[in-house]
Amino acid sequence: MSKTTVRTDQAPTPIASFSQGSAKGGLLQVAGQVGFDPATGVPVGPGLREQIDQTLRNVQAVLEAGGSGWGDVIMTRVYLTDTAHFAELNAAYDDWFAKALPEGDFPARTTIYVGLPAGLLVEIDALAVVGS
Amino acid sequence: MSKTTVRTDQAPTPIASFSQGSAKGGLLQVAGQVGFDPATGVPVGPGLREQIDQTLRNVQAVLEAGGSGWGDVIMTRVYLTDTAHFAELNAAYDDWFAKALPEGDFPARTTIYVGLPAGLLVEIDALAVVGS
Amino acid sequence: MSKTTVRTDQAPTPIASFSQGSAKGGLLQVAGQVGFDPATGVPVGPGLREQIDQTLRNVQAVLEAGGSGWGDVIMTRVYLTDTAHFAELNAAYDDWFAKALPEGDFPARTTIYVGLPAGLLVEIDALAVVGS
Repeated sequence: MSKTTVRTDQAPTPIASFSQGSAKGGLLQVAGQVGFDPATGVPVGPGLREQIDQTLRNVQAVLEAGGSGWGDVIMTRVYLTDTAHFAELNAAYDDWFAKALPEGDFPARTTIYVGLPAGLLVEIDALAVVGS
Repeated sequence: MSKTTVRTDQAPTPIASFSQGSAKGGLLQVAGQVGFDPATGVPVGPGLREQIDQTLRNVQAVLEAGGSGWGDVIMTRVYLTDTAHFAELNAAYDDWFAKALPEGDFPARTTIYVGLPAGLLVEIDALAVVGS
Repeated sequence: MSKTTVRTDQAPTPIASFSQGSAKGGLLQVAGQVGFDPATGVPVGPGLREQIDQTLRNVQAVLEAGGSGWGDVIMTRVYLTDTAHFAELNAAYDDWFAKALPEGDFPARTTIYVGLPAGLLVEIDALAVVGS
C-alpha cells in the first residue's frame, strides 16, 4: 500500500511542493483547484460561472488521472469569496451533477467564505474512495 | 464497495446537489451542518450556544442515519465567524463531548474563522470511519 | 478496528475536548496545528517563516506519535491570514518537503485565507493513511 502521486497536464501545474492529487489505501485526495485554464495557466473569463465550471473540470481531470471519477467522491469543499455568490454556485452545481451523477448520489459538501488570491472567486477540493 | 448517500429528515435538507452524508469503503463524510432546526428550516435562536448545540445535533443525526456515531469520528472542522466566539465554542464542545465520549477519545479538530451566510455563526462537518 | 487517540508532549496540548490526532481503520487525522512552541505554549517568534516551520514540526510530532510520517500524508490544509504570505509559505514548503519527501511524493494541498486568533499567522492540518 504505497502512496501514489497524481500528475496530469489536464489540470493546472502546482507551483510549490504539493501534488494535484495524492492516493493511498484506496483514498484519493484532490488538491484545491481553481479556475485556471491548464493550457494557459491563467483564470478563465472574469465571471463566477466560468470559474466554477473550469474548477470542476480541473477536479475531474485529477480524479480521472487517479483512476477515479465523481461516483467515488464522498466530499467536496467549496471556497467562495462572497456570500452573494452562493445562488450561482448552487445553480452551477445542480447543472454539473445532473450530468455527472444523474442517479443523485451526490458527495457531501461544505461551503465557506474565505479570501483567495486576486482574481480568483472559487476553489474546490475533493475526497474520493477509489474502487468498486 | 458502492457509495451510499445518507438522507434523514432529522437534519436540514440540502438546498442543492449535495448530500447530508456520503459513505464509501468504510468512510462516512458528514456535510457542513449549521444551526437550522430541521423541523422549520430556520436557525435556532439568535445565540451562538444554541446554534452550536443544534449544529452538533444535526451532525449527530447524519452520523446516526449513516449507521455511525461520535465514537467513529476522527475529525471535525469548525467554522466560526468571530475569534471572540472561541471560548464559547470550547465550553459547548466540552459539555457535548463529556456526554458523547466520556472516555475522552475525542476527534481531532480544526477551527478557523470565515464568512457564513447572514444569521449563521457556526458550521461544523465531520469525518467518520465506520465499523467496529 | 477501534479508534486511537494520539497524545504527545511534542506538540501543543489541546485546550478543549479535541485530540491532537485521531486514528481509525488506517486513517490518521492530525488536528489543526499552529506555531506554538509545545514547551512554552506560546507562538514562536513574530515572523511568518518561524511560525510555518514550527507548525510543520508540530504536525510531524503528531504524525510520529501516531506511528506515521510525511510519506503517509495525502493531504494538508493550510490556513493563512493574508494573501501576501503565499510566496513565503511556498518557499517554506519547498524547503521542508525537499528534506521530508525528497522523491517528490508530496501530499495534495488546499490553501485558503481566513481569520485566526490574534498573533497566529498560519494553521495546518494533515490526513495520513498509515501502513505500508
